[in-house]
Amino acid sequence: MKIIILKENLSKGLNIISRIVSTRGSLEVLSNILIKTEKGRVCLSATNLEVGINYMVGAKVEEGGAITIPARLFSELVNSLPGEKITLELEGDTLHIKSDNYQSNIKGISADEFPLIPEIKTNQIFEIKSSELKEAINLVGFAAAADDTRPVLAGVYMKIDGSKITLATTDSYRLAEKVINISNGKAKKTEIIIPAKTLMELSRILGELAEDSLVKVYLSDSQILFEADGLDFISRLIEGQFPNYTQIIPESSDTVARVPKDELLSAVKIASLFARENANSIKISVKAKGFLEVDSGGSQIGDNKAKIKIDVSGKDGEVSFNGKYIIDALNAIRENEVSLAISGKLNPGVIKTIKDKNYIYIIMPLRN
Amino acid sequence: MKIIILKENLSKGLNIISRIVSTRGSLEVLSNILIKTEKGRVCLSATNLEVGINYMVGAKVEEGGAITIPARLFSELVNSLPGEKITLELEGDTLHIKSDNYQSNIKGISADEFPLIPEIKTNQIFEIKSSELKEAINLVGFAAAADDTRPVLAGVYMKIDGSKITLATTDSYRLAEKVINISNGKAKKTEIIIPAKTLMELSRILGELAEDSLVKVYLSDSQILFEADGLDFISRLIEGQFPNYTQIIPESSDTVARVPKDELLSAVKIASLFARENANSIKISVKAKGFLEVDSGGSQIGDNKAKIKIDVSGKDGEVSFNGKYIIDALNAIRENEVSLAISGKLNPGVIKTIKDKNYIYIIMPLRN
Repeated sequence: MKIIILKENLSKGLNIISRIVSTRGSLEVLSNILIKTEKGRVCLSATNLEVGINYMVGAKVEEGGAITIPARLFSELVNSLPGEKITLELEGDTLHIKSDNYQSNIKGISADEFPLIPEIKTNQIFEIKSSELKEAINLVGFAAAADDTRPVLAGVYMKIDGSKITLATTDSYRLAEKVINISNGKAKKTEIIIPAKTLMELSRILGELAEDSLVKVYLSDSQILFEADGLDFISRLIEGQFPNYTQIIPESSDTVARVPKDELLSAVKIASLFARENANSIKISVKAKGFLEVDSGGSQIGDNKAKIKIDVSGKDGEVSFNGKYIIDALNAIRENEVSLAISGKLNPGVIKTIKDKNYIYIIMPLRN
Repeated sequence: MKIIILKENLSKGLNIISRIVSTRGSLEVLSNILIKTEKGRVCLSATNLEVGINYMVGAKVEEGGAITIPARLFSELVNSLPGEKITLELEGDTLHIKSDNYQSNIKGISADEFPLIPEIKTNQIFEIKSSELKEAINLVGFAAAADDTRPVLAGVYMKIDGSKITLATTDSYRLAEKVINISNGKAKKTEIIIPAKTLMELSRILGELAEDSLVKVYLSDSQILFEADGLDFISRLIEGQFPNYTQIIPESSDTVARVPKDELLSAVKIASLFARENANSIKISVKAKGFLEVDSGGSQIGDNKAKIKIDVSGKDGEVSFNGKYIIDALNAIRENEVSLAISGKLNPGVIKTIKDKNYIYIIMPLRN
């Protein structure tokens, strides 16, 4: 193998794939990335057995070949090299890396030992603009369960039905749902669950690609593939039945407030400083005459109250939520205003975006 | 106490003092800062018993008083508040903090319980421009010992003699010395040792003040005070005798190279990636015909060589150093070129700045 490649391109490729690499694990080759020539280009691959990723990078391929080398060392080296062009040349299992006045040798492991990343490009189920997929993941991903106690809750539920795709997550304390419309839509009805951590990694990677990239999505029995701009991103699916969550979405609420997002975010963050010792419980009071109060409640260290002017429909209302759950949603929402609907102390609260009618976020109340 | 203060000023003051606050420790009041009105201004104080710091902030003082409150909570609150002005009002031991639509209450501890920061403004020993003191600290501070095995080595040795002040540090593997001239100089001969961590904190704080501030330095038997721009920074001194280091400064060297600093820094950083498993040993070879080679040496993972064009006087030379020690010095030096002098494999190497004739850095060789 002999390749001449722009440092900028190699560096971008390594940045895209290298967070997938296993950092702990028994199989040494999993902490390596695979470098492989393919049709006059270079394919960089990484896998942690949960996710596999291939990313194609343009290069001048003088001689074909393949090798795996330690991801971290190689990324740090490439990012540190000052030159513009890098030459990679394989001799046995040693990769020679030359750039200007630098000459490095890194010992690799044969490409044969690298796990195969499966090819599943037969059953395309839909395609979608990269920016839309990224936003949908960001709006629901954070609400999945952080641990695997109930594996399905650590995933993003995805229901494909005609031209509508519904993404939903819940950790049983809150629920996020986002519906997206696909343009080329005639997908047959499918329900799957994808690990949320994996999708959040995909969202990060889509942020590195061009905003208007088109993502093609393929499905096999146990895996899903996202393909875009030289990227193949394959994740395992989670088996099991996602809870029927639609029943907990309130049909109406007693009190509906239209709230400036940044003001609410700031007030809840400040109240959270004082609520740490108190399970992060934050009291929200909506007054029909036009304001909302965020109250940390009393604690050993002190307390905080903030008052925000808002538009209200319905009656006065009051309820306590975990402040973190409000912050998570407001951090993900990009609109300037949100609607906050509550129905007394014992019922879930609902946050919705205003322009985008296809997003809903439900928070269970805390009982004090 | 009732104070109206600009958020920006309070925030800056808290940023300056709050890194001194004890984060672990048995005495609860040490994790607090003291807020005290003084002559129509507000004095913010923090101490960890090693260092004490007072910083004066302008404010509208409507009623005098003093209280200590938790540093971390108060800093986070002030930094998060969106308003421009903050009102602080004391009622019993509770501080009320009001800003626009926010109202917080923080429980404090009586100011009487806060340790007294001693007043030692009688014996001024010299004054110096803030930017010069900061640079001198940065050029020597990193070479002090990181632990207290030999307490004097964890300090910066300071010798004041007439108009010359010498700062020196050594962890016994390397040595840094910087001489500064003071303008108003007639200080009597004094030798002291100041904890290096403390001085590095002072350097960070001086970076927050105006570049052309003048720092006045006062001395008592066991403490030193740096005063500048509303800041009083008091540190304990380290007792003991600093080693007589001048004898290890080589009088001449066999090989002297003039090296572009950024190129050498980059080459040593890259070699260090490969030298991790090998005690970070980096081989430097200087060739009289005009180049310098940086070599990581071989290791299990691979190796790296870089070649830099340089001006040389003297003969060929070769020596191994701990790469970290070279990186530390080059990171602190702001000139574009440095001189690197070596005398074979068994003698110390010397790095000097070129324009500034008053800095010298010695590194002991590694024997491979």
